[in-house]
Amino acid sequence: MKHNARNDIPAEVVEIKKGGVMAQVTVRLKGTDYRMSSVMTLDSLEDLGVTEGSTVRVVAKAVNVLLVADDAG
Amino acid sequence: MKHNARNDIPAEVVEIKKGGVMAQVTVRLKGTDYRMSSVMTLDSLEDLGVTEGSTVRVVAKAVNVLLVADDAG
Amino acid sequence: MKHNARNDIPAEVVEIKKGGVMAQVTVRLKGTDYRMSSVMTLDSLEDLGVTEGSTVRVVAKAVNVLLVADDAG
Amino acid sequence: MKHNARNDIPAEVVEIKKGGVMAQVTVRLKGTDYRMSSVMTLDSLEDLGVTEGSTVRVVAKAVNVLLVADDAG
Amino acid sequence: MKHNARNDIPAEVVEIKKGGVMAQVTVRLKGTDYRMSSVMTLDSLEDLGVTEGSTVRVVAKAVNVLLVADDAG
Amino acid sequence: MKHNARNDIPAEVVEIKKGGVMAQVTVRLKGTDYRMSSVMTLDSLEDLGVTEGSTVRVVAKAVNVLLVADDAG
Repeated sequence: MKHNARNDIPAEVVEIKKGGVMAQVTVRLKGTDYRMSSVMTLDSLEDLGVTEGSTVRVVAKAVNVLLVADDAG
Repeated sequence: MKHNARNDIPAEVVEIKKGGVMAQVTVRLKGTDYRMSSVMTLDSLEDLGVTEGSTVRVVAKAVNVLLVADDAG
Repeated sequence: MKHNARNDIPAEVVEIKKGGVMAQVTVRLKGTDYRMSSVMTLDSLEDLGVTEGSTVRVVAKAVNVLLVADDAG
Repeated sequence: MKHNARNDIPAEVVEIKKGGVMAQVTVRLKGTDYRMSSVMTLDSLEDLGVTEGSTVRVVAKAVNVLLVADDAG
Repeated sequence: MKHNARNDIPAEVVEIKKGGVMAQVTVRLKGTDYRMSSVMTLDSLEDLGVTEGSTVRVVAKAVNVLLVADDAG
Repeated sequence: MKHNARNDIPAEVVEIKKGGVMAQVTVRLKGTDYRMSSVMTLDSLEDLGVTEGSTVRVVAKAVNVLLVADDAG
């Protein structure tokens, strides 16, 4: 499967929270302590079929990634 | 500075590409070989004031992070 | 703190609504009657540490801003 | 025309920049000095049919609006 | 009403789910069996004023559309 | 490959435009005359490895889909 997002990193699911319509899945990037979160609909979570410990890939389009620099730059 | 994006990871700028209106900045997440890209306007790149080697933070809202799982799940 | 979003406007928090996983924060742009809303995870709301009356900055990437014109243009 | 974006503010086009595929349109929110930018394809700019001085509405989904607070909160 | 999103397709609302803050509206693209979903705040759903069977247009900015190709390409 | 976006529709590439940093790919949804566009970096276009006539899937997160209704609702 190829896609046109610049960002594609292997990760492991570490936490899943469910709301009324939405769900929040937190993952840890493989080989790091960095955590990232993805918010999705409960339907999508069900389709994805992941549980804590599952291996996934974190995908984000470059247009949706913001860079922040200290004032000293 | 606090913000309401779930994803906030330190990184180093490794490449900058400029087009007519847009620019693409590629970064390496600190302590890893993982690369991420951010696309922004040339104006924003100028405001950000970064060059190759600059330290930045990669910020992305959880709603814009997609998770992909193998069919075996 | 510098970032690479084109849109960055001072505002005041006027309302906070909390759901199961998500929260909606409504702000009023300083010196105007214009209101904007941001949706985030409850975790992010907690990290942000704002309450009604707090001063914040509204940040949005230009790629996520849509312009609508009347048919008469 | 009704839409499901929380953010909808009247504005005036003040600048248009064109690249190879993309274009950047800067607007000033009516009755303020606040400027916002929208990035779109050249095709979309053509469809929109605006020029400097045109009246538009700035529309952004609440999920794509980030709030930033000073550390003092 | 003209806007600067590349994607604009007529559809019919087929399902509405409501959570604490968010709502999910599923639509069927007119003349097809293709379904698409939109997530919005409950406030936005109320403003939109649609129910099952309502006619709407599905609008998405091209930067938020991801293309996926099989490995065989 | 499973992912957590609600919107996933088969399509055929009908046009590709390249700029300095970005590219615009227009597709036709299979079995319809509906066209959708995706904007991506040139790098991503190269990774995707598609040309006019290629079969792809159009994927968009529900949070990035806007619904527009006529005033009559």
